[in-house]
Amino acid sequence: MNKSLLASNTVGWAGGRKPNASKPRLSGILLSAQTTLLVLLLSFNAYAEPRATGDLGLIIEREDGAALIVNTTEHKQLAKIAGLGDLSHASVVFSRDQRYAYVFGRDGGLSKIDLLLDKLEKRIVQAGNSIGGAISQDGKLVAVSNYQPGGVKVFAADTLALVADIPTDYAPGQRSKVVGLVDAPGQKFVFSLFDAGEIWTLDMQNPHQPALEKFKNIGKQPYDALISPDGRYYIAGLFGESGLALLDLWNTAAGVQRILPHFDKNDDKWPVYKMPHLEGWAMAGDWLFAPAIGKHEVWVINKRDWTLHKTIPVLGQPVFVMVRPDARQVWVNFALPNNNHLQLIDVKNLTVTNTLTPGKAALHMEFTPRGEQVWVALRDDNQVRVYDTATLREIARLPAQHPNGIFFSARAHKIGF
Amino acid sequence: MNKSLLASNTVGWAGGRKPNASKPRLSGILLSAQTTLLVLLLSFNAYAEPRATGDLGLIIEREDGAALIVNTTEHKQLAKIAGLGDLSHASVVFSRDQRYAYVFGRDGGLSKIDLLLDKLEKRIVQAGNSIGGAISQDGKLVAVSNYQPGGVKVFAADTLALVADIPTDYAPGQRSKVVGLVDAPGQKFVFSLFDAGEIWTLDMQNPHQPALEKFKNIGKQPYDALISPDGRYYIAGLFGESGLALLDLWNTAAGVQRILPHFDKNDDKWPVYKMPHLEGWAMAGDWLFAPAIGKHEVWVINKRDWTLHKTIPVLGQPVFVMVRPDARQVWVNFALPNNNHLQLIDVKNLTVTNTLTPGKAALHMEFTPRGEQVWVALRDDNQVRVYDTATLREIARLPAQHPNGIFFSARAHKIGF
Repeated sequence: MNKSLLASNTVGWAGGRKPNASKPRLSGILLSAQTTLLVLLLSFNAYAEPRATGDLGLIIEREDGAALIVNTTEHKQLAKIAGLGDLSHASVVFSRDQRYAYVFGRDGGLSKIDLLLDKLEKRIVQAGNSIGGAISQDGKLVAVSNYQPGGVKVFAADTLALVADIPTDYAPGQRSKVVGLVDAPGQKFVFSLFDAGEIWTLDMQNPHQPALEKFKNIGKQPYDALISPDGRYYIAGLFGESGLALLDLWNTAAGVQRILPHFDKNDDKWPVYKMPHLEGWAMAGDWLFAPAIGKHEVWVINKRDWTLHKTIPVLGQPVFVMVRPDARQVWVNFALPNNNHLQLIDVKNLTVTNTLTPGKAALHMEFTPRGEQVWVALRDDNQVRVYDTATLREIARLPAQHPNGIFFSARAHKIGF
Repeated sequence: MNKSLLASNTVGWAGGRKPNASKPRLSGILLSAQTTLLVLLLSFNAYAEPRATGDLGLIIEREDGAALIVNTTEHKQLAKIAGLGDLSHASVVFSRDQRYAYVFGRDGGLSKIDLLLDKLEKRIVQAGNSIGGAISQDGKLVAVSNYQPGGVKVFAADTLALVADIPTDYAPGQRSKVVGLVDAPGQKFVFSLFDAGEIWTLDMQNPHQPALEKFKNIGKQPYDALISPDGRYYIAGLFGESGLALLDLWNTAAGVQRILPHFDKNDDKWPVYKMPHLEGWAMAGDWLFAPAIGKHEVWVINKRDWTLHKTIPVLGQPVFVMVRPDARQVWVNFALPNNNHLQLIDVKNLTVTNTLTPGKAALHMEFTPRGEQVWVALRDDNQVRVYDTATLREIARLPAQHPNGIFFSARAHKIGF
């Protein structure tokens, strides 16, 4: 009986019912001895399991508009947070103390989740259609990248109050969708204007005087971008023409440079089933690994001179090309019709060494901070599978409703995540 | 009255008194109503302030044999943990959930601190004299680097039970001091034998069958080492001869290579006031920044071919040469008689741009994970000063008794810390 009491209490607290549960505190004297004992058990039990936040993460459940709070040490679900809106394209950033997760939904929703009390702390709908966000170097500002209306909005991380509104007007009556929004050192955000072919930097050192720097004619239709792990290089992929746009944030006076200008991305004329993603994960030692658009290739770009070092043939159109934290392996997932597969590239030899078939629709992967595990979201299998990245053996499996994204709290400590 | 109650309760709990405090749980029915109310207030209040662990750290108080738990967002001390023994040369690693800090003392003490309950969870004295330690990639093993008796001991991170004992016997009756112990990907530890001039790797994939690989004749008197942030390159400094010893963990068959072999470390014959430290912080982009021994220089080594790119004159003998997480600045502190100063190197231009005099005996520095702050331990001023690394303005000051080390919980997610 005792055990079940404790168990149910835990669930009670996990639901974030502290406000109700704390009522006895005001009327404790009036409680019967038994109730008092129960409340004591409840409260001490709640305190008996303090939670650290270094090994937590969120799994996005696309159809349910929900997120699962998970623990990567015990490979278990701690809670499910519902009511997050349209998560068909969701991303997550974390507060610097790793207590809060900020979920950016497709419907313009910005949701703040408390990872300690297992509750939705606050949710706002700040635009009609958005594509992601970032958190400032000091953790005090959260920026969102909007399609409709096009622009960037910056909110206070604690209250979600609007701090700055940056509409991306680039010509009379012309406003651009915003893509590739990242944080950069020095309280900056950097983003690209899909319709305008521009890159803007936003300096929020003084939150009341946002300072914009605009780089025009950087190339047609930037569709996504990444920033190097040290926060120096911002690189936007171009959908409308060949090559990539590179901005060196240590030398913005040099402007935006085109890299791989003569490299046609789609010469075999396959339809592009899904736009690839660019993320800070793609840098390993001297190499930048980039997914080719509409081709069955991963490009290996030499960071020293930004030339193409090698193209690695893969089994489908790559979507995510992610470097394991120790830079030894690159994991690749694919667009339809190959999205049941993953391939591994050995960075030492720059060759594909393994092909895995973890299940149906492997849409996203996340490495644990030191790289010993990788978690794979299998949307059409309703589960997440966890692999040992050294042995490629399965470590664990977690049920999840149509999972399409996995984000661990260690992102809080990284530049550009 | 209510307020003061809550305040004092917090302190009570901070002292880690939960075991006593939980007694009422067993005899709640017998308690007077008033006591019951107090206990309720006490317990709910204890739960009322859940603590995240992403922005925590430890400040080592050398003389007191104590550590302060601090919060880097609010710049405040949360608790003081005493009874940690001789911390004249202390280092700290963190569990993967960032709940526990493991403090390695000079006296062979290994202390496990609970950062959530503010208490010393366990302490063992595992050797007579030790110099530091590391935590395994999966967070389950803690290894300690011992001088007396020479060797490495590996403990279970949860219980501190001995898992493996690796005496460093290198000749009949000859046992070496161990230095430069780091963790490496694949459940490995790497360390150097000061007396033997050897580097050993220890594979703990199977904790019951530790696998050693030994590299002999790597150079005279390795005194410390670092591993690159990606865990690939292990580099040991040599005190007994010129140059550094380099082991590529992606290609151990190539053995240990000497870099900068003709570069005499001490040609101006100054006494070495303090051995410099080598840490994973020293890598920035293409450069490895290394403190010269007994010289007033920082060496800039080209990671592409491991040749000397530049020597940067500094105002004293460098001790710590630490790269800000965004790789744009290098902060340097110095041995006596210059240990009241810090110098900053701009990585873009490879020149000294600033000289700071934060106070007396600036023995250690720690950057916040994304580099916006640096904390400086001022042993002879009995305080820690916090600077904004962009403006170099002071953000905060914390009192501390003879602080000589600062370690933040984000180290949990890094390779080689």
